[in-house]
Amino acid sequence: MQLQLDNYLKDYKLLLENEIQKRLSVLSIPEQLKASMFYSLQAGGKRIRPILLIASYEAFDQNIEKTMSSAIALEMIHTYSLIHDDLPAMDDDDYRRGQLTNHKKFDEATAILAGDALLTHSFELIAADPLLSDREKVELVKRLSQASGPLGMVGGQILDMEAEKNTVSLEQLEKIHDLKTGELLKYAVYAGAYLGKATDEQLVHLTNYAYYLGLIFQVQDDILDITGTQEEIGKPVGSDEGNEKSTYPKLLGLDGAIQQKEKYVNKAKSELQLAGVTDSLLGALVDYISTRNH
Amino acid sequence: MQLQLDNYLKDYKLLLENEIQKRLSVLSIPEQLKASMFYSLQAGGKRIRPILLIASYEAFDQNIEKTMSSAIALEMIHTYSLIHDDLPAMDDDDYRRGQLTNHKKFDEATAILAGDALLTHSFELIAADPLLSDREKVELVKRLSQASGPLGMVGGQILDMEAEKNTVSLEQLEKIHDLKTGELLKYAVYAGAYLGKATDEQLVHLTNYAYYLGLIFQVQDDILDITGTQEEIGKPVGSDEGNEKSTYPKLLGLDGAIQQKEKYVNKAKSELQLAGVTDSLLGALVDYISTRNH
Repeated sequence: MQLQLDNYLKDYKLLLENEIQKRLSVLSIPEQLKASMFYSLQAGGKRIRPILLIASYEAFDQNIEKTMSSAIALEMIHTYSLIHDDLPAMDDDDYRRGQLTNHKKFDEATAILAGDALLTHSFELIAADPLLSDREKVELVKRLSQASGPLGMVGGQILDMEAEKNTVSLEQLEKIHDLKTGELLKYAVYAGAYLGKATDEQLVHLTNYAYYLGLIFQVQDDILDITGTQEEIGKPVGSDEGNEKSTYPKLLGLDGAIQQKEKYVNKAKSELQLAGVTDSLLGALVDYISTRNH
Repeated sequence: MQLQLDNYLKDYKLLLENEIQKRLSVLSIPEQLKASMFYSLQAGGKRIRPILLIASYEAFDQNIEKTMSSAIALEMIHTYSLIHDDLPAMDDDDYRRGQLTNHKKFDEATAILAGDALLTHSFELIAADPLLSDREKVELVKRLSQASGPLGMVGGQILDMEAEKNTVSLEQLEKIHDLKTGELLKYAVYAGAYLGKATDEQLVHLTNYAYYLGLIFQVQDDILDITGTQEEIGKPVGSDEGNEKSTYPKLLGLDGAIQQKEKYVNKAKSELQLAGVTDSLLGALVDYISTRNH
């Protein structure tokens, strides 16, 4: 399963990056704007969100062309959120994944607008997709805007900013992570299964699966900040310790955080069983995300 | 007609502001984010974009509840663009319409996120509207994302930033204004007429009408920068003169600019005649915008 997953991740990353290039290159827009949008889109990492969307679809159907616009839209929204997060007024980061951040490569005004453009264009991709029915487009647009807007990711970012100044409870920490990163992962799994014509009950369990997957993602991030090497995680080890930021190890201790992660792993897998999609790659993705070292 | 228009503008401004408050107050989102979104939404001016949408609809049908989600979505997108435009990295404005700009009232991070939230939520408003068919929602989302994204407003903002460093031709100036402000006005008129079940030919002529309306808007802005009083226009008179910014009076002289405006006024009215909607308020809006003193 591990080798199968590795190949799958590699193949779909390549497929998605080709698709991104194709869809951006046909856009008749100002060159500077296109360059800035493309710079951050091509600097992407593992493409875990769109791959999750496709893997979820493939639990039901193989005709993955149907997922492409919502997968690329999702990656565009993730990318816009990174560009805006990196701005001086937000996290003020000069580098991301070893490359200059968008506002350092271009300038702040261009970075703000490139983020706005990616966010806005993601909805156009879905609304103009000839492979989707109107019903499907409406459902995807609605879910994506809920997951990424004030009810979802943007709401989580505000809460996260506020939480940096205070210590929060485990419950509050889960709420913040669910909004800030979980909502987009839930959208990914929901959108794939919805397009694959999952039943309403399956959609509920798969959304629960994605909820736990998001928490696993975050606990592992926090654990790696303590146990990883700088080379692996691409930032100084222990960078969470020096500030007031709430993390799982701070709230539960390192061992407690590892146990909490195992709890989430079991819950994620049990939701998959309840959804009846145990032979898909979604199970392998749980192990991949819970044991990743970067 | 003038009194009728004045009352119309006043009544619909009030209606829209009530509707904005209603739709925002029911949102279950972090308080700080809601406060920041609401602050800029309620600071709005004449609400000309959503009113144009409703007026366009009313040329065909009277049941205006159907226009509310797309009208509010449009005002949210206009508002987000003002918040991001005012940021230090962009125009760096401390005041707008006599009130502190969003990032001065709150902080830069909150202003960036409030803009992102307004932009994203605008698509949710349309996609979740129970009064619209799926077909209508898809058409409105597609048109709104095209009008406001890299193919429209955001593209125009990038071109405008570049043009500030150079003198541009009249043709280039029209292209910039068409993208930066015209696209949203075209969306307004298109969306209203589309929901009112205008024919394809009517939609073409009404879109042309909105194109000229946008240019009238801009020429008059440029003219007021020379002939207006600071009290009327809310900024120092002649503020365009000191920089390299291309304006109609700079390219054509003041008399030439006034003549150009008359040309656009005639074209806008002739498009209305071709669309066969001469007894609507859209004609009065041309005169209102071309003779406004603020």
